[in-house]
Amino acid sequence: MKVLIDFTIIPLGVGVSLSPYVARCHEIFEKRKITSTLHANGTNLEGEWDDVMGAIKECHELIHQTGVPRIASIIKVGTRTDRSQTMDDKIKSVNSKLHRA
Amino acid sequence: MKVLIDFTIIPLGVGVSLSPYVARCHEIFEKRKITSTLHANGTNLEGEWDDVMGAIKECHELIHQTGVPRIASIIKVGTRTDRSQTMDDKIKSVNSKLHRA
Amino acid sequence: MKVLIDFTIIPLGVGVSLSPYVARCHEIFEKRKITSTLHANGTNLEGEWDDVMGAIKECHELIHQTGVPRIASIIKVGTRTDRSQTMDDKIKSVNSKLHRA
Amino acid sequence: MKVLIDFTIIPLGVGVSLSPYVARCHEIFEKRKITSTLHANGTNLEGEWDDVMGAIKECHELIHQTGVPRIASIIKVGTRTDRSQTMDDKIKSVNSKLHRA
Repeated sequence: MKVLIDFTIIPLGVGVSLSPYVARCHEIFEKRKITSTLHANGTNLEGEWDDVMGAIKECHELIHQTGVPRIASIIKVGTRTDRSQTMDDKIKSVNSKLHRA
Repeated sequence: MKVLIDFTIIPLGVGVSLSPYVARCHEIFEKRKITSTLHANGTNLEGEWDDVMGAIKECHELIHQTGVPRIASIIKVGTRTDRSQTMDDKIKSVNSKLHRA
Repeated sequence: MKVLIDFTIIPLGVGVSLSPYVARCHEIFEKRKITSTLHANGTNLEGEWDDVMGAIKECHELIHQTGVPRIASIIKVGTRTDRSQTMDDKIKSVNSKLHRA
Repeated sequence: MKVLIDFTIIPLGVGVSLSPYVARCHEIFEKRKITSTLHANGTNLEGEWDDVMGAIKECHELIHQTGVPRIASIIKVGTRTDRSQTMDDKIKSVNSKLHRA
């Protein structure tokens, strides 16, 4: 089962600067060869369910190992069986429908 | 790694009545003995990461098998290493701090 | 426009104990007479769009005023025009479909 | 109060193709001059709280007016008082911390 995911990680108890932790997660995604795209409020991920969810689990585990006591994260999941659709397809589909002069 | 999760499933392409699908997920949670509490906008789940995430995956798979072509879901995740905390603990902790006359 | 909302607030830069802040939000909801139900991973809110969103805004503002430098929150929104539905209706609808022996 | 938001809209009861509705929302954001960036699983928005939330409300209202009976949406909110930060700042901050060869 393929999945498109938007993942946001929020480490708690470590101050207000979260970008070092987001960067650690991206290194996991790269190491595991998960297709990922960073945006301003999270990271889009694309792949097989187990691969993507496994990477997210490693991200929680690794960040705890660096001494972070509590983590909140938000995983927005999309699965579909009617057709294959990539992250790029979704963006193109919206853009094609914008009534721009 | 223990996890507290708030899970919301939104089947698409099947009209506006979603409760039959939420009920199917709850049957999976019960079968797998995942501690779960239904609320008005989702289901709280408590357990080991792999157990809870495995149940959520089965939920997506089962609902697709019933003919639903597309599913969106939202998984709010909480993990912590500083102490053990149940769903009940979290609710009691807030209630103890309400300044009620 | 009526709205059913699941609201989760995550203050950052204040350590790992978040329940005092959740309690402050609940006092706002009570003061503004917003129907609210606390659960383990957030608070369900019910009312007119402007009333509920106004209370959420006051919650962000008040928590910043107590010295919290950064806040993340998650607002899951439901609106419908086909029929009126309360938070209780949603829970009853799922429970009625559970195949319990 | 400035806000950075990630907004995802999920119209229900209208089949599996959601991009026309996302496009309608983007037209509202452009009309109202809200800074917005589309990504594969939502739209990032930046501006004053009331401006951004007002645009999201109009988005729900407009989509209902086109005949959509039920809408779910997810609003991830970020506010901070310690410093000003744009969407671009957040992305640059993560990228600067990636240990890329």
